[in-house]
Amino acid sequence: MQNQQVLLSRRPTGIPQSQHFEVVSTPVPALADGQVLVRNSYLSVEPAMRGWVNLAPNYLPPVEVGAVMRAYAVGRVAESRHPAYQPGDAVTGMFGWQEWAAVPASAIERRVDHGATAGLPVQTALGVLGLNGLAAYFGLLDVGQPRPGDTVVVSTAAGSVGSCVGQIAQIAGCRTVGIAGGPAKVALCRDEFGYDAAIDYRADGLDEALAAACPRGVDVYFDNTAGPVSDAVMRLLAPRARVVVCGTASVADWTDWPVGPRVERHVLVKRAHIAAILAFDYRDRYPEGLARLAPWVREGRIAYREDVLQGIETAPGSIAGLYAGENMGKRLIQVGPA
Amino acid sequence: MQNQQVLLSRRPTGIPQSQHFEVVSTPVPALADGQVLVRNSYLSVEPAMRGWVNLAPNYLPPVEVGAVMRAYAVGRVAESRHPAYQPGDAVTGMFGWQEWAAVPASAIERRVDHGATAGLPVQTALGVLGLNGLAAYFGLLDVGQPRPGDTVVVSTAAGSVGSCVGQIAQIAGCRTVGIAGGPAKVALCRDEFGYDAAIDYRADGLDEALAAACPRGVDVYFDNTAGPVSDAVMRLLAPRARVVVCGTASVADWTDWPVGPRVERHVLVKRAHIAAILAFDYRDRYPEGLARLAPWVREGRIAYREDVLQGIETAPGSIAGLYAGENMGKRLIQVGPA
Repeated sequence: MQNQQVLLSRRPTGIPQSQHFEVVSTPVPALADGQVLVRNSYLSVEPAMRGWVNLAPNYLPPVEVGAVMRAYAVGRVAESRHPAYQPGDAVTGMFGWQEWAAVPASAIERRVDHGATAGLPVQTALGVLGLNGLAAYFGLLDVGQPRPGDTVVVSTAAGSVGSCVGQIAQIAGCRTVGIAGGPAKVALCRDEFGYDAAIDYRADGLDEALAAACPRGVDVYFDNTAGPVSDAVMRLLAPRARVVVCGTASVADWTDWPVGPRVERHVLVKRAHIAAILAFDYRDRYPEGLARLAPWVREGRIAYREDVLQGIETAPGSIAGLYAGENMGKRLIQVGPA
Repeated sequence: MQNQQVLLSRRPTGIPQSQHFEVVSTPVPALADGQVLVRNSYLSVEPAMRGWVNLAPNYLPPVEVGAVMRAYAVGRVAESRHPAYQPGDAVTGMFGWQEWAAVPASAIERRVDHGATAGLPVQTALGVLGLNGLAAYFGLLDVGQPRPGDTVVVSTAAGSVGSCVGQIAQIAGCRTVGIAGGPAKVALCRDEFGYDAAIDYRADGLDEALAAACPRGVDVYFDNTAGPVSDAVMRLLAPRARVVVCGTASVADWTDWPVGPRVERHVLVKRAHIAAILAFDYRDRYPEGLARLAPWVREGRIAYREDVLQGIETAPGSIAGLYAGENMGKRLIQVGPA
């Protein structure tokens, strides 16, 4: 039986493009004791993948050239040589960009369509009930510490993390302001994700629009972008503001380290607090996060969007498309039955 | 009886120079009920005064043109129309750059040479047992959260805040690295303030010297400068580093907002945490801070230096001199008997 795999074939600097990957066909390996064979259903496409393939220091070692591209996936157990898993179990983990994954059982992060998330589509484990939703949940609530009445500003507000942040902030009683690129995403922010205000950063007058949307300043800024959008928000921080750094989507490349307005004075004068959210750091508390998020998703209090590409051959160009903003919702690649 | 006062006569942009102040002679006013007349002994000179006279938004409203320059001072009560104070009491508060201060009793922050600080020179209330020491104490311990064995880097390491930070970090069991300008201050860091390593940022090879002094990275960076010194330290942050922003001495002017290397990626990849220390925010806990600091000063575990100017006519040029680095230790102006 053949396995289609996507390998990192050349190391990019900056945003990985299709020419940095190749699709190869290899035999599905035989299982060793303790291993599980997963038939992947959906592969995840993340902005964080840029960092995973670049050599700049990061929180994980870079994917090696020639290796299967690192990725979260959901799939079903096809064969098991570990007592905890049975054929047919829906599971998620870092199974990589491939159709079949022969992995040690420890690579399985959790069963999906199970426990708190039972009855919800399996692919939510890659988005609103996966790393994206968990980054939003812990980043906003633990790092951002929002209080009812706070003004919460979110960049890439229509994205899979941002849209979840905005909706959790509303549940927490905050006023929410989303920043997104282009009229379609701005409309999505207002109409589907319920932001109190939504701003198109590509239009003129970002500073004025932000000031109008945040008359009492910004108490929590959930930053997915860095860059000029963040610079504009920083100028409006309220006293004791919390800045949650989740991603740097607007910075194409850290090889030539970009410059921007210094932040020290904001920190000092506003007593702003800047810290990161990396969902991995909250691994021990994933069950708590899922137990809160799943009912909100089930009740429709957290809406989510998906952008599903079909077939593994779409994978090589999928990250660059994300950075070009061509997706509306969590980008997934369907490579097998759900 | 005449009172020599230093007024803000013109509003500076950037660092205030002598031409922005004038010394005037006015009659000492009669006291109203509830007021106290203080004969100032020492006036404080602070880097923060730049921010107090500039129009850029700050944590206090700017000093008005024509007003007595805002300043901490220590002095003795000469006359009291408030039952809590008696003539002869040594007190500290924001009495301004003047020889005599007729103030409401509420302007007195505390009695000095009293309680925890009894027996120590009154002027320590303006430095090691005042705002400087308290910023060091709360900034390092509450914001910086040092653990024994951590590497703590301090900029303006020989200054009145920095020297105290370095010595508290040593008491807390940390490895301490001081950054200062010029061989004399570097020697002071090593010989008098006990830093494990001291680096002259004016010499070549700051990056290399820092890397050599911090082989396991920087766990806590106590930042008094911003600017290129900070940029070099940020590149060496260890995972979960804490950056304590206390001052921005190397930035001459925020009117044209300076740019520098973006910090978001340090925050994200290292999970660094950036926050401010402003001693005022800990006002409720000053007694705790003084109760800890005073014995350390008395026992010689915290050494301090003073740079005492004589006479109120030295005040107008005293801030610019501070920014030029001409002082070795806490700058004070003696304007009366202690």
